[in-house]
Amino acid sequence: SEVKKIAVIAGDGIGPEVVAEAEKVLKVTEEIFGYVFETEHALFGGIAIDERGTPLPKDTLEICRSADAVLLGAVGGPKWDNNPKELRPETGLLGIRKALGLFSNLRPAVVFDCLKDASTLKPEVLEGTDLMVVRELTGGIYFGEKLRRQGEFGEEAVDTCVYNVMEVERIVRQAFEIAGKRRKKLASVDKANVLETSRLWREVVNKLAPEYPDVEVEHILVDNCAMQLLRRPSSFDVIVTENMFGDILSDEAAMLTGSIGMLASASMGEGSYGLFEPVHGSAPDIAGQGLANPIATILSVALMFRMTFGYEDAAAAIEAAVAEVLDAGHRTSDIAVDKSKAISTTEMGDLIVAAI
Amino acid sequence: SEVKKIAVIAGDGIGPEVVAEAEKVLKVTEEIFGYVFETEHALFGGIAIDERGTPLPKDTLEICRSADAVLLGAVGGPKWDNNPKELRPETGLLGIRKALGLFSNLRPAVVFDCLKDASTLKPEVLEGTDLMVVRELTGGIYFGEKLRRQGEFGEEAVDTCVYNVMEVERIVRQAFEIAGKRRKKLASVDKANVLETSRLWREVVNKLAPEYPDVEVEHILVDNCAMQLLRRPSSFDVIVTENMFGDILSDEAAMLTGSIGMLASASMGEGSYGLFEPVHGSAPDIAGQGLANPIATILSVALMFRMTFGYEDAAAAIEAAVAEVLDAGHRTSDIAVDKSKAISTTEMGDLIVAAI
Ligand SMILES: CC(C)[C@H](C(=O)O)[C@@H](O)C(=O)O
Ligand SMILES: CC(C)[C@H](C(=O)O)[C@@H](O)C(=O)O
Repeated sequence: SEVKKIAVIAGDGIGPEVVAEAEKVLKVTEEIFGYVFETEHALFGGIAIDERGTPLPKDTLEICRSADAVLLGAVGGPKWDNNPKELRPETGLLGIRKALGLFSNLRPAVVFDCLKDASTLKPEVLEGTDLMVVRELTGGIYFGEKLRRQGEFGEEAVDTCVYNVMEVERIVRQAFEIAGKRRKKLASVDKANVLETSRLWREVVNKLAPEYPDVEVEHILVDNCAMQLLRRPSSFDVIVTENMFGDILSDEAAMLTGSIGMLASASMGEGSYGLFEPVHGSAPDIAGQGLANPIATILSVALMFRMTFGYEDAAAAIEAAVAEVLDAGHRTSDIAVDKSKAISTTEMGDLIVAAI
Repeated sequence: SEVKKIAVIAGDGIGPEVVAEAEKVLKVTEEIFGYVFETEHALFGGIAIDERGTPLPKDTLEICRSADAVLLGAVGGPKWDNNPKELRPETGLLGIRKALGLFSNLRPAVVFDCLKDASTLKPEVLEGTDLMVVRELTGGIYFGEKLRRQGEFGEEAVDTCVYNVMEVERIVRQAFEIAGKRRKKLASVDKANVLETSRLWREVVNKLAPEYPDVEVEHILVDNCAMQLLRRPSSFDVIVTENMFGDILSDEAAMLTGSIGMLASASMGEGSYGLFEPVHGSAPDIAGQGLANPIATILSVALMFRMTFGYEDAAAAIEAAVAEVLDAGHRTSDIAVDKSKAISTTEMGDLIVAAI
C-alpha cells in the first residue's frame, strides 16, 4: 500500500497521553489492513512556546505541509494564558489554520448511547440527535483587520469581518455535499437582518441551492438557531455557518449531546488534506495522571481514515472497536458512573486496539 | 401623583392584543395606587411600513422622546421579511434603539414554577436558575460600517465591529450595579483570545472591578459560555456582554428556562428612561385569535414601574397577581397542559387585573 504521511502533534496537557493511544491504533490498523503510515512528530502550542519561543515553529508547519494529514491532541493551558498574543497557543491555532488553508471545520455532534444520561437535556428531547456543524475557519472577524485608535469618546478598538464570494462558496458547497450524503437537510445560519457579510452568505447559499436539488435548505438566524438547538436538536442534520457563529454554535451543539469528551473533529483544506483532533481541550488539571479518555482522539483517527485516505474499512473497524469496548462496560473516569471501576488512558487504548 | 407619560407601541402580530391587556393593568394600578399615567399610542414596525412607508415614523420617535418610558408589544412578520432593508421592521428596531440611546438590554431569564417542565433541560439542572443577561445594544458589529466591494476573489462584504471605552464603561458599570443588588456575581463574556474589541472590553471590566469589591467577576469566552449555560445555568447571576454575543446568549438563556413566553425585558437609556417589551416575538401565526399570552407584556409593565418610575409597590402587586392567577391554575393555550381548558388573552388579562 502507498505510504501515507501523518504529522503528529501531541501538544499540551493531556494531548501527549491521548495521542499516544491514537498512535497505537494507527499501528494496529497497519498490521491488520496492510496500510502504511509514516508519522512525524512536531512541536506546537504551549510546549512549542516553552521550547522554541513560538507556538507555531517553522519546521512544524513544514512537517504538516509535507504530510497528507495532521493528527492533533490538544493545545493550551493556564500557563500561557496571560502571555502576549504572539506567545499564546491559540495564536498558533489560528496560524496553522490559515497557513494550511484549513477552511472548513467539521464537528459532528452525536449522542453516545453510554452517555445519553450525561446530557443536561431530557433524553426524549435528545433522542436521535446526530448533527454536523460545518464551520468556516479561515475568514470572517477572526482574520479581518484589527486595530486600536483614539476616537471622540476615548480609545476605541476595531475588528473587521470580511467574506468574499469564493470563501463562502467553497464552504457552502462542502456543506451541501456532506448533507447530500446524510439526511439531506442543510440549515444555513446567518444574521442577514443585520450583517452585510450574512446577506452575501445567504445570496451564495441561494445561488448554489439549485445545484443540490435533493438537499432541503433552511435559512436560520443565529439567535434563533441557538434556541432551536435546545428545543429540537434532533431536527438538525447539517448546519453551515461562518467562523464566529460556528465557534459558538458548535460548542453549544457538542455540549448538548452530553458526549463532548467523545467527539472527534476535522479541519479540512483543499482536496482531502485535513487536521484531525478531539473536540475536547487540553484539560491541564488531569494531565499526566493517566485519567484522560483517549476515545475522541482515536475516533479522530477514524475520521482521518475516512475523509483523507478513504480507508473506510479501517475507519469502520475503529468505530466498531470503540463501540464494543464501551458496550462491554469499560469506562475511563470521565465517563464512569462508578469512578472506582474506572480504567486508565492506556488501558482504554489497549482494549480498543485489542478489539480492532 | 406626578403624571408619567408612557408611549405605547402595539406593533404587529399579537402585539396589539397583548398590549391591550397591559393597558388594563396600567389603568387598575392608577386606581389602586393613585399613580397617574398618560399614554400615547404610536405606529412602529410592519404596521408603520404599511401605513406610513417607514418602520419608524418621525412622530413615533417624538412621542417616545417626550415620554418617560415606552411599552412595546412586538414587531415583524413574514409579510415584511423580503422587503428592502429600509422597509423592514428590524430596521426600525435598530433605529429606535440608536435614536433613543437605549444602550443596555436587560433580559432576565427565570424559571416559572408552572413551566418548569416546559424546558428541554432536566429539572434538576434547571433548579434555581435565575440569571440576567445585560447586553450592550447600540454598538459593536450592529452599528459599525458595512459595505460591499470588489476584491481579488470576487465580490466581498464587510462588517465592522467598533467599541470605545465610554460605550463599554457605561454598560459594564450598569451590570456591576445590577449584580451588586442580586447575588453579586458577574460573568463578563468576550472572545478576548481573538478580538481586539474583546480585549478592550476585558480591560475595562478589569479597570472597573476594584470599584465594586463585593461583586465577584469571572471572564468567560463566548464559546465556553454557550456551553456553560447548558451545563450549569443556575451558577450564573449577571452576564454582561457586547451586542452580538448578547443577542445569541440571551436567546439561548431564555430558551433554556422553558419560560420564554413569560419573560419581560428592558432596554435602558441614560438615567431611568427605558423601553419595555416581552421577550417573545409577534407570533403572526396566532395573531387576532385571542390565543396570545399577555403575561410577558404585563410583566414588562411591572419592570417599567420598578426600573423607570420606582413604583416598587405596584410592580410587586402585578407580579404577585400574575403568580396568584397561575397558582389558581389558569393558563392560556401556550402554557396549558390541557389545551381544551385554556383561557383567552382577554380572560387572562381580566383575571390578573382582578387579582391586583
Ligand atoms: C482557541 C480559539 C481561538 C478557537 C477558536 O475560537 O476558533 C477555539 O475556540 C476553537 O473553537 O477551536
Ligand atoms: C430583530 C433583530 C435585529 C434583533 C437583534 O438582533 O437585536 C432581535 O434579534 C433582538 O434580539 O431584539
